[in-house]
Amino acid sequence: MIRIDPSLAPLLALLLAAAGAVAQDAPIAIAIHGGAGTIDPDQLSPARRAAIEADLGAALDAGHAVLAAGGSSLDAVTAAVVMLEDSPHFNAGRGAVFNADGRNDLDAAVMTGHDRRAGAVAGLTRTRNPVLAARAVMEHSPHVFLIGAGAESFARARGLQRAGPAWFRTEARWQQYLDARERENERRRAGDRQAAASRRAADYYGTVGAVALDRHGHVAAATSTGGMTLKRFGRVGDVPVLGAGTWAEDGCAVSATGWGEMFIRAGAGHEICARVRLAGQGLAEAAHGVVARDIPALGGDGGVIAVDGAGNIAMPYSSAGMYRGRIDADGRRVVAIWAEDDGTAR
Amino acid sequence: MIRIDPSLAPLLALLLAAAGAVAQDAPIAIAIHGGAGTIDPDQLSPARRAAIEADLGAALDAGHAVLAAGGSSLDAVTAAVVMLEDSPHFNAGRGAVFNADGRNDLDAAVMTGHDRRAGAVAGLTRTRNPVLAARAVMEHSPHVFLIGAGAESFARARGLQRAGPAWFRTEARWQQYLDARERENERRRAGDRQAAASRRAADYYGTVGAVALDRHGHVAAATSTGGMTLKRFGRVGDVPVLGAGTWAEDGCAVSATGWGEMFIRAGAGHEICARVRLAGQGLAEAAHGVVARDIPALGGDGGVIAVDGAGNIAMPYSSAGMYRGRIDADGRRVVAIWAEDDGTAR
Repeated sequence: MIRIDPSLAPLLALLLAAAGAVAQDAPIAIAIHGGAGTIDPDQLSPARRAAIEADLGAALDAGHAVLAAGGSSLDAVTAAVVMLEDSPHFNAGRGAVFNADGRNDLDAAVMTGHDRRAGAVAGLTRTRNPVLAARAVMEHSPHVFLIGAGAESFARARGLQRAGPAWFRTEARWQQYLDARERENERRRAGDRQAAASRRAADYYGTVGAVALDRHGHVAAATSTGGMTLKRFGRVGDVPVLGAGTWAEDGCAVSATGWGEMFIRAGAGHEICARVRLAGQGLAEAAHGVVARDIPALGGDGGVIAVDGAGNIAMPYSSAGMYRGRIDADGRRVVAIWAEDDGTAR
Repeated sequence: MIRIDPSLAPLLALLLAAAGAVAQDAPIAIAIHGGAGTIDPDQLSPARRAAIEADLGAALDAGHAVLAAGGSSLDAVTAAVVMLEDSPHFNAGRGAVFNADGRNDLDAAVMTGHDRRAGAVAGLTRTRNPVLAARAVMEHSPHVFLIGAGAESFARARGLQRAGPAWFRTEARWQQYLDARERENERRRAGDRQAAASRRAADYYGTVGAVALDRHGHVAAATSTGGMTLKRFGRVGDVPVLGAGTWAEDGCAVSATGWGEMFIRAGAGHEICARVRLAGQGLAEAAHGVVARDIPALGGDGGVIAVDGAGNIAMPYSSAGMYRGRIDADGRRVVAIWAEDDGTAR
């Protein structure tokens, strides 16, 4: 046992407080997205816009509260993504788009940077929060990636909350599905295969995600999606492909949204972090290079959110808009949809 | 129409021959693997070893013949992997391991470097050559990654050759499955959960793959696997995760084999190519760094084969052995299993 002279107690208290203050001063930061694409201001009523911004803000604040209380970046991104999944306004969990069979196919992934742990799921249909299934894979299985009925069984075995088609379905998404199907059929009747093939992918996708830095200096990323409207053949996009739509390594975490195929081919998340680590680029420069050059060079578009170990945040996108929010290391809070909504350069 | 003075014909022929000669001199190279792991020399009879080396050699020669005839690296890796899938000796296609339900779940991927096209499939059960399904996704769909029953439907719709359980099943694999199941049950009866969890993953996996450089200077990679013996819950390893077990970019292609989860967390394929492109490392240095340091640091093992735009080949592995072969730019041909079989450093 260590004995401490009582006369030293005040000094000791001061030292402990100082040590605590260091931790208190360590930067925390969080960024979220609710999808990128052709978000038409004229199509978005003031009431709907307010509802979307309220849900983005609530998810952002939930994640930040975890960090502010000294919680982990993993808990922060999980909390934020669960709220975005439960919101009917985004293409993940409740409000997910419908595949060609009129069903919801859900994918998600989560990864932590300092220890490179990861979990991903694809093709879930009955798990309310796919991001929790991805996290369960990471924490309670020797595996990283589970798909289809097997992934569903695992989520059930872990006791995760179930949800039926009625939970996921929103009237707006169902109407979007019926409209999209009708357009496809019209094109097919007209023999216009080219037009059907070249439909703007941006009209069909969406994602939610979060990245965060906690007081321990650890980063994490999480992403969740319903994929593309009318997707067929068990199509999976970039979300559960670790290194593409979701990636974290020591001091760098990325979550993407956009035309998933191009983000896989670009290895978007891993590429951004590799440019920071190996090429000495800043986070903003690396993220911009991939989003504004590499993805468009492949014919795609979309955006990413990224955070580094100093709390820097980058949120570039090449589409018309991106639902997003961030609270940076200085506590500045922004919720935005279009470029003019915040000071961030496109 | 261009008219050429007949007197210039001999000079023209010489020029054309010279141009052809340049293409003839452009380096070609190919490397293949049939899996890495605890390959015990005492367990491998001379007859079985000879059969394995013959199949490795045949696949290697098939791929090299494509390159020598001026064919594409994509065609070369496809030809080699199809032969390895059809061989009963490797864990891919025919001879694949069995999952916990006693079925074969097959994953594959293919990627070309210069144009970053890619295709991947996971959870196939009835397609004879999964690598052809991955290639069909790349060439005949707007998608990159298809899973499960949907992927199977796509392969069927493309007219790919079907195969039943009897085709994939070999007596040796079935016995391996029964033995593994018995060991698991014994451990479970003994309550030895720790031992069950810490079973040597190396005993349970295997993969086949190929990388190649063609006379056009284009590289490609392809990988195919039956995954892990006794895998459950729709587990997918690194093979169809582009950037992990399979990756190609301009001047760098990688195919991995090993404990898939660790290769995903390391982003192995993409990381090797990023170190070459961004950090100025040589291919051998980059491949060795990931295989001998990063993967073991995560607790895993395995190996990769990699080729660059100059025809350099690297084939490091951290396991006891790796079934492998290569024909380098100078035409040197090696088929090997253990370290002493060739001059390559471990």
